[in-house]
Amino acid sequence: MADSVPTACVLIIGNEILSGRTKDTNSGWLAERLTGLGVRLKEIRVIPDDSATIVSVVNEVRAKYSYVFTCGGIGPTHDDITAESIAKAFGVPWELNDAARAILRSNYKSDDELTPARLRMATIPHGAELIANPISKAPGFKIDNVYTMAGVPRIMQAMFEGVASGLKGGPVLLAHSVVGNVAEGRIGDALAAIQARYADLEIGSYPGQRPDGTFRNVVVVRGVDRIKLADAAGEIAAMIRSLGGIASDEPPA
Amino acid sequence: MADSVPTACVLIIGNEILSGRTKDTNSGWLAERLTGLGVRLKEIRVIPDDSATIVSVVNEVRAKYSYVFTCGGIGPTHDDITAESIAKAFGVPWELNDAARAILRSNYKSDDELTPARLRMATIPHGAELIANPISKAPGFKIDNVYTMAGVPRIMQAMFEGVASGLKGGPVLLAHSVVGNVAEGRIGDALAAIQARYADLEIGSYPGQRPDGTFRNVVVVRGVDRIKLADAAGEIAAMIRSLGGIASDEPPA
Repeated sequence: MADSVPTACVLIIGNEILSGRTKDTNSGWLAERLTGLGVRLKEIRVIPDDSATIVSVVNEVRAKYSYVFTCGGIGPTHDDITAESIAKAFGVPWELNDAARAILRSNYKSDDELTPARLRMATIPHGAELIANPISKAPGFKIDNVYTMAGVPRIMQAMFEGVASGLKGGPVLLAHSVVGNVAEGRIGDALAAIQARYADLEIGSYPGQRPDGTFRNVVVVRGVDRIKLADAAGEIAAMIRSLGGIASDEPPA
Repeated sequence: MADSVPTACVLIIGNEILSGRTKDTNSGWLAERLTGLGVRLKEIRVIPDDSATIVSVVNEVRAKYSYVFTCGGIGPTHDDITAESIAKAFGVPWELNDAARAILRSNYKSDDELTPARLRMATIPHGAELIANPISKAPGFKIDNVYTMAGVPRIMQAMFEGVASGLKGGPVLLAHSVVGNVAEGRIGDALAAIQARYADLEIGSYPGQRPDGTFRNVVVVRGVDRIKLADAAGEIAAMIRSLGGIASDEPPA
């Protein structure tokens, strides 16, 4: 793919993912959405709630990719250190944001309910723009190319949908699948030859099982040109059939 | 936690995860198993099937953590470039391994079936030890502190179980949960005070929903001392009850 295609990194921040207690679903969801928007997700990284780690990783990946999306660590408790750490990464003050405070305030009857813990959720890096949270109010924020979102999947997704239209995507990477029943070891050499002829497509081969437990292998051809994908997929299906196998075609949606 | 506790990084290698087509479950599974073995998982990274990226990330993380576990990219097709890339990372030849070839050969009736594609699966970094694959024969391998395993979850899990007993773990990080019904914003300040008194415990707070859709918040106390965990959990439950809430205790199994 051309270097000019926008790229992204997803950072999942949270000890609970690394301990295995919580299973991350945010990165898979974002992977699909970003791919659909023509943004190439190049890296997913899960890191602990540790400020020095967050600062250094954010600074590494924001320099490397067009977009960085972080999930987790922006709630009201002491272990929510993402906002403060991102302020540090950018070298800007971590400060109470009036607009964020007003949004939170609208959730409560009196100022008394704006506990110090809750005000943490309105304290963000200086210069950041808010990302709306239509589910539970407390906003995310964007600073430069870094989008900081909640870890709760429903809230993260709503925040992402609010910023998605502002992202600049390139041509969408389409996937054309050929589902067959011939083992990888038998198609591998011919598949490599087809890949060599289609240098601007990415051909991947993924063995697995059908829901009924029988073997299947899925060859996925990725690229931006629907016609070229269909050509390559056609060759792959013909190759599988020439080996006595069955192959069915699944063009991109 | 003491610096002497063994640490780990899980590397998931595969374009299909980054495109969102396949959802990674290997990292979550390994997170639980490593935690149970007393190994602290410090990082999960998902990277593409790109040799330069694999080489540089493997060299970065193998220097940083006690153990590195890679998943994916050791099959027979052209996109399976993990073994070759790890050989490059270690600066050793990528060569046909006789023992691996013999294991593969036992799967087939004749030498003819050992296609060049299949022989890729017996071609590993010089000096690596094989990791048994009781499911589909083609082995993984270990070189220094890097364990290279398959991407298919069933096979990866079987490979991991074969090496697990050889891993050196530290004290197991236990988790004691307190499930309550009081919002994070109301418990946050008191929880921070409890955390400050238990500096060698890690206290995390995770809002979510019960299966019936009602709100719940889970406070998880992590540490290696069961008694200290129970003390902190008791204080947290009492604090939630003092705010009029309900709190139930879930000690480590």
